[in-house]
Amino acid sequence: MERVFNFSAGPGAIAQSVLEKAASELVCYGDKGMSIMEMSHRSAMYIEVYEGAKQALRNLMKIPDNYEILFLHGGATMQFSAIPLNIMKKEGNADYVDSGNFAHLAAVEAERYGKVNIVASSKEDNYAYVPDVDQIKFNADADYVHITTNNTIYGTRYTKLPDTGDVPLVADASSNILSEPMDVSKFGVIYAGAQKNIGPAGLCVLIVRKDLLVDACPLCPKLLNWKLQVKNDSMVNTPNTYGIYMAKLGFEWLAGLGGIDAIYEINKQKAALLYDYIDQSKLFKGCAQKEYRSLMNVTFVTGDADKDAAFVKYATKQGLVNLKGHRNVGGMRASIYNAMPLRGVEKLVEVMAAFEKENA
Amino acid sequence: MERVFNFSAGPGAIAQSVLEKAASELVCYGDKGMSIMEMSHRSAMYIEVYEGAKQALRNLMKIPDNYEILFLHGGATMQFSAIPLNIMKKEGNADYVDSGNFAHLAAVEAERYGKVNIVASSKEDNYAYVPDVDQIKFNADADYVHITTNNTIYGTRYTKLPDTGDVPLVADASSNILSEPMDVSKFGVIYAGAQKNIGPAGLCVLIVRKDLLVDACPLCPKLLNWKLQVKNDSMVNTPNTYGIYMAKLGFEWLAGLGGIDAIYEINKQKAALLYDYIDQSKLFKGCAQKEYRSLMNVTFVTGDADKDAAFVKYATKQGLVNLKGHRNVGGMRASIYNAMPLRGVEKLVEVMAAFEKENA
Repeated sequence: MERVFNFSAGPGAIAQSVLEKAASELVCYGDKGMSIMEMSHRSAMYIEVYEGAKQALRNLMKIPDNYEILFLHGGATMQFSAIPLNIMKKEGNADYVDSGNFAHLAAVEAERYGKVNIVASSKEDNYAYVPDVDQIKFNADADYVHITTNNTIYGTRYTKLPDTGDVPLVADASSNILSEPMDVSKFGVIYAGAQKNIGPAGLCVLIVRKDLLVDACPLCPKLLNWKLQVKNDSMVNTPNTYGIYMAKLGFEWLAGLGGIDAIYEINKQKAALLYDYIDQSKLFKGCAQKEYRSLMNVTFVTGDADKDAAFVKYATKQGLVNLKGHRNVGGMRASIYNAMPLRGVEKLVEVMAAFEKENA
Repeated sequence: MERVFNFSAGPGAIAQSVLEKAASELVCYGDKGMSIMEMSHRSAMYIEVYEGAKQALRNLMKIPDNYEILFLHGGATMQFSAIPLNIMKKEGNADYVDSGNFAHLAAVEAERYGKVNIVASSKEDNYAYVPDVDQIKFNADADYVHITTNNTIYGTRYTKLPDTGDVPLVADASSNILSEPMDVSKFGVIYAGAQKNIGPAGLCVLIVRKDLLVDACPLCPKLLNWKLQVKNDSMVNTPNTYGIYMAKLGFEWLAGLGGIDAIYEINKQKAALLYDYIDQSKLFKGCAQKEYRSLMNVTFVTGDADKDAAFVKYATKQGLVNLKGHRNVGGMRASIYNAMPLRGVEKLVEVMAAFEKENA
């Protein structure tokens, strides 16, 4: 079976070589005579995998020693609850920047645990940009500031981080982690659901500065308690052992390509190819404001819903799948995560050009 | 690489044919041109997998129509928190039977959300039996009664269910789900971490009677809210898509063997073989009281810690691995879940006999 080019927003494409390696050792891992899935999470053979994953991520992102790394159950949405449960003080408050759907959902969940200040929002403009961080008045007494570094549905990203002073910056980086350099020391917490740039769904990576490991709200479910999870090295219960293994393979694949600096160059090249085509096209139009364009999720429309649908169908026939945009934006979305090869984007541009010609 | 016989308590063995099928379609699933791991959880191709898993479980366990099935993140421990958050009333209380380590941990977690009545405990006897359910005085005003149907660490199981009248019976069946017939209609909730008899870790199956889908505690994290998860068919966020797929393969494998009635016969045969050997042995001694012996986890000792360690080493050399008992019991534990073939237990008995002869 020939593999398609999969532009899914998440779960998204995984590098073929990673999948091939996983397939080759699925029944028996190395000389262990069993699958990774069958290993006790407490066994030396699995701990080696686990520690390998952690170290590989630390190396890739140059995570300083004063940050802990957790591999938690449940994706970023579980952390929407865990964040206020862990670091919102009793009768505390937090600043949330509303730059898209998941930013909004994170704030809605936090509101159930304390006071949420929506300090800026681009909702009125259907999230076509990220609010200008220099114009935002953050609250000096907030327990933290929450941002979403890349907005999957709308195809926007932060190109500059807000200066929040002593207030910890908490970032959902689900859809752009590992795609571009991030200075971890600028954040209090970075978290990311695995299913876009890390591995399979059901896993969340959380990077937390040690001084933020305080006593959680007394009602915080034990698996959502960061301090407890750090004390138990992400193993308060059996973690998502296979997901962590897949993440490790992904991290090693990325390191083999030259790490984040190298993939960032490729990602810029891929995005430029697509945006440049869109910008000169007479048929297709980009949705996000140029200054805030995502390198991972490229949103575009023809302006005619029937033509959009026709294009998606046309591309699917040629092995370019999952290009339909989210209903909040319409049109098309090409998610071009790390695992999407340059060739996939080249082919997309070729197919867009052919469709445009046929529909001129 | 030859596969070992893996007696791990969890994550535990998975049927080789299930692993082989998973390996064969890991890179490309059917004619889809992508891995299961890369599929959008909203796509028709994945929904087919998801619905297939749900229906297969419903068929295997003969789950009545007035029960919902959920596939949730995080294993049974996440539900230790979710249970009180969902069905313990405000200023309510619940009865917990303390029959082992996980039964204890479930109660400790519930105590954080309301009043927990430990209505019976076998702790004083190092959990060598399950409290006699006919002797327990349950509280008529309890919101629910919680039991653990099989105690992984101690090797005991309920052989009779308590009659809790109108109070819903909530059961952690992580280590014996699908291993023997269970009359689902006797329970309010059955839940099970996947990593013993279902599939890889990071997933929890929850079967809940519809009338128990009430409004959760206002502070319940959204992913732990059963009513909301049912409304969204386990997809409040991206579920553990690959884990659910593996569970489906496991369910299909079990159905192919003849379902639960058939595996129950095999499980009884496996357990009898091992217990019969232990009972006539002059070296090995069973830890659990006979009446409550688990069919899934067989605990035994020599009475001499050095000899125990020597046996574990001896067995390991012959490809029988993870036989070391939990530190709370010591000695040995052979977890013989559904995926452990009869041949594995036969070989274990042969190796025990040889060791006994050498050490007579």
